[in-house]
Amino acid sequence: MNFKIVFLLACFLTGLISHSQTVQQKINQYRKENESKIIDEYVKFVAIPNVTRDTANILRNAAFIKMMMEQRGIKAEFLSGTTPNINPVVFGEIKVPGAKTTLSFYAHYDGQPVNPAKWTGRLQPFEPVFIDKPVEQGGKIISVSGNISPEYRLAGRGSADDKAGVMTILNAYDALVKTGVTLTHNIKFFFEGEEELGSTHLDEIFKKNKEKLQTDLWVIIDGPRHASGKKMISFGVRGDVNMNLTVYGPKRPLHSGNYGNWAPNPALSLVQLLASMKDDKGHILVEGYYDDVIPLSSNEKEALSKIPDVEETLKKELGIAEPEGNGRSFLELLHLPTLNINGIRSADVGELGANIIPTKAEAMLDLRLVLGNEVDKQINKVTRHIEKNGFHIIDHEPTDEERSKYSKLIKITRTTGYPAQRTSFDLPIVRSMVKAVQATVDYPVVLLPSAGGSLPLYLFEKTLNAKVISVPVVNYDNNQHAENENVQLKFLWEGIETIAAIMVMQHK
Amino acid sequence: MNFKIVFLLACFLTGLISHSQTVQQKINQYRKENESKIIDEYVKFVAIPNVTRDTANILRNAAFIKMMMEQRGIKAEFLSGTTPNINPVVFGEIKVPGAKTTLSFYAHYDGQPVNPAKWTGRLQPFEPVFIDKPVEQGGKIISVSGNISPEYRLAGRGSADDKAGVMTILNAYDALVKTGVTLTHNIKFFFEGEEELGSTHLDEIFKKNKEKLQTDLWVIIDGPRHASGKKMISFGVRGDVNMNLTVYGPKRPLHSGNYGNWAPNPALSLVQLLASMKDDKGHILVEGYYDDVIPLSSNEKEALSKIPDVEETLKKELGIAEPEGNGRSFLELLHLPTLNINGIRSADVGELGANIIPTKAEAMLDLRLVLGNEVDKQINKVTRHIEKNGFHIIDHEPTDEERSKYSKLIKITRTTGYPAQRTSFDLPIVRSMVKAVQATVDYPVVLLPSAGGSLPLYLFEKTLNAKVISVPVVNYDNNQHAENENVQLKFLWEGIETIAAIMVMQHK
Repeated sequence: MNFKIVFLLACFLTGLISHSQTVQQKINQYRKENESKIIDEYVKFVAIPNVTRDTANILRNAAFIKMMMEQRGIKAEFLSGTTPNINPVVFGEIKVPGAKTTLSFYAHYDGQPVNPAKWTGRLQPFEPVFIDKPVEQGGKIISVSGNISPEYRLAGRGSADDKAGVMTILNAYDALVKTGVTLTHNIKFFFEGEEELGSTHLDEIFKKNKEKLQTDLWVIIDGPRHASGKKMISFGVRGDVNMNLTVYGPKRPLHSGNYGNWAPNPALSLVQLLASMKDDKGHILVEGYYDDVIPLSSNEKEALSKIPDVEETLKKELGIAEPEGNGRSFLELLHLPTLNINGIRSADVGELGANIIPTKAEAMLDLRLVLGNEVDKQINKVTRHIEKNGFHIIDHEPTDEERSKYSKLIKITRTTGYPAQRTSFDLPIVRSMVKAVQATVDYPVVLLPSAGGSLPLYLFEKTLNAKVISVPVVNYDNNQHAENENVQLKFLWEGIETIAAIMVMQHK
Repeated sequence: MNFKIVFLLACFLTGLISHSQTVQQKINQYRKENESKIIDEYVKFVAIPNVTRDTANILRNAAFIKMMMEQRGIKAEFLSGTTPNINPVVFGEIKVPGAKTTLSFYAHYDGQPVNPAKWTGRLQPFEPVFIDKPVEQGGKIISVSGNISPEYRLAGRGSADDKAGVMTILNAYDALVKTGVTLTHNIKFFFEGEEELGSTHLDEIFKKNKEKLQTDLWVIIDGPRHASGKKMISFGVRGDVNMNLTVYGPKRPLHSGNYGNWAPNPALSLVQLLASMKDDKGHILVEGYYDDVIPLSSNEKEALSKIPDVEETLKKELGIAEPEGNGRSFLELLHLPTLNINGIRSADVGELGANIIPTKAEAMLDLRLVLGNEVDKQINKVTRHIEKNGFHIIDHEPTDEERSKYSKLIKITRTTGYPAQRTSFDLPIVRSMVKAVQATVDYPVVLLPSAGGSLPLYLFEKTLNAKVISVPVVNYDNNQHAENENVQLKFLWEGIETIAAIMVMQHK
């Protein structure tokens, strides 16, 4: 074997073994060289207010995304549903000759409402600045020039949730094209504008554009990576529905002295009802509440067992001495349905409190659903539990007749809700994707059968008959939905790297 | 027996039998003749704002009362305590030569805070007007001239609570003097200016003026008459103390999806605690809660049995299908200690509600005490109950160390509180007074061993070593402490009649 042949063979083997490493290096090299350009563009993007109900600014965001796509050679259009004047989806598509697989990348560009007064450390929601660490940990605004430390964070509403999704998807594609990596799959771009409104019109957009949206795998870029800081793939989400309970007492607030012991107190009635729903370890006592749960597969259980244990860190950070769940692990508990008290309110407490018997007591419940649970069925279990506790259920303010007839009256209203979604670990395309992401790091990627939170991902399966998987990219401590939202730059950079790897993953 | 002797004998017998009727007729006659003068003065009085913390206007009220007293020949002075700048008591005294008994009449001239925006039907707190019936029942403002129907009401803050007390006391005295009725007892006038602040400085005023305030019987003119509309004498009040509970959860609000089933929910912990304190009939389950109660005497029980039953009316008016108390009567229940939930609050509900695990849950409890209960002892019973339910009790915001050590953390704060007070039916001076009031009506006066509400009447016993009794005069539906406060004129007139009868009651 002469030197030339040895050299060629080595090149060939290296190519086989480290195709992905080579792409990764190219992408990272490109990103480094273009960092300030990428950041400049991103700062401009975050500076456009994106509160989901602020239609005028939402349209400015949509136009900005369309422009960014066109600058990258992606023909972009706005998708709508049947309802007029909804925040548009910005959509684009790259067809690769001969490609047999289509990958669609999802992010949303709308953001949660903001209360600028709550932002601290001189941060403001739509005046993006760099900080050296979280404001809550003493972080300060940094004036940057030239290369920026990947430890720094860009602060602003949407910087993490979820303009980071739009930003990493578009730059991952751009980096692939600019560095001459050959694309092997068709790629679709789908940027939603109503996620923070609960994706109310997503289904009608899906229905209206069903052909255009045909996809082998949807990749959702949204939400934070694992608390350990490791890259993560999430295979599902819990479903979600809310119940609002109002228990009624006397028609007007009564003097607690003049009527105390005689007039029924709706706050007492409500606390007795709520207390009956769970034991003191958090186990739900509503009959059959866990009955429909489809248990985790052995593969899923194995994945769970490999996820770094962050419970002690969380306990310390959150000031929790003993979690609920009677000794079950954090991750196991995330794969069970919940019945959470979001809030309770009856009259006033503290300075505003008065010696009265309140007229009503309200609670808001949050029911998270897992695979196997149906929304209406879960609601019905709770409703039956309430009836068994002696309540007469109404859906309106009680009439005088109802008040005089029923000693325990409760109004129940609910949201529409949606079920959980979970994609199997065993699908070939899913395996290919996991492999591609795993190849970018030298530690085991966190594979989470289901996130604890909820998104209407079931729609992708139901309406588009598609597979869907989530690859969150931003830092865990991003203050999502709250004041001082921020994204740490190294997570943006690693996000570009991860998404590029998926775009050119080996799969046929 | 000649005609003249028969006539004289008849006159003598009539005099014996109907001394009280004669006084009553004189008083009522005088009042009728002077109605517009009395009302004019009262309207001016109610027009002076009397919110208890509005010092400048409080002093205007005090000066107005002093002037009214001096116009009636009562030398008036301001009494203070040791704390500077407190709202003064306006005090006056009439010494009757040879009198062996001293009666003191109490009312308060300060009023509850007002929110003018809540007043309806064009009423305003300090622009007194006449209405034909309660605004809530369609009442309208009436322009009056000449004789005013006793059914009409004067509306304004303090019109009932408790300028009506000042008004009826001063005019009862005035009517006696102007109609030439001979006084037989010394009379003292005591008008407090801080009742709505909780009578914080009453005890120091008592202590500083102990000699001046020596009295055989204090007559408190405050609060409403019985719901049946009948005249009422109340022999006591419940004591009162508040507890504020705060249960702690995670240090920051957590996403109910990402942490639900794992992070302990303080709202659940609080409802379980509160639910454990009472059964669903309102019976208090805190150990020993009823142990110290001194039961009603047979006289007191008999009085209770004679009080008109208003439960069905109240149930209808308040929209209550089934009262608490497991079948015990309204009045029996008012003579037991209470444990009322004044209010509960944890995060938000309804429109403001969010899918979170709250950081804390708060409740305000109201503990009414009856004869035999001690404030600290009742508080301790509840505190022990909370400890038995696994809570670690603190009196401050929890430290990180406490959070990590105790899975159930509760902050408890309390008010000072005060005990109940109850005057015996069997005291001779009390019997004399009851007789005098009873003689003014042809139905049995309502004799209530204890009102459900609370006043620090125990101070009259403890500091002044005096007997005290309450004779409320205003209508039951006076909207005391609330918007559209009003007094029905016939209750003012009957109040004058009642108080005049007490001032000249037969007793030696």
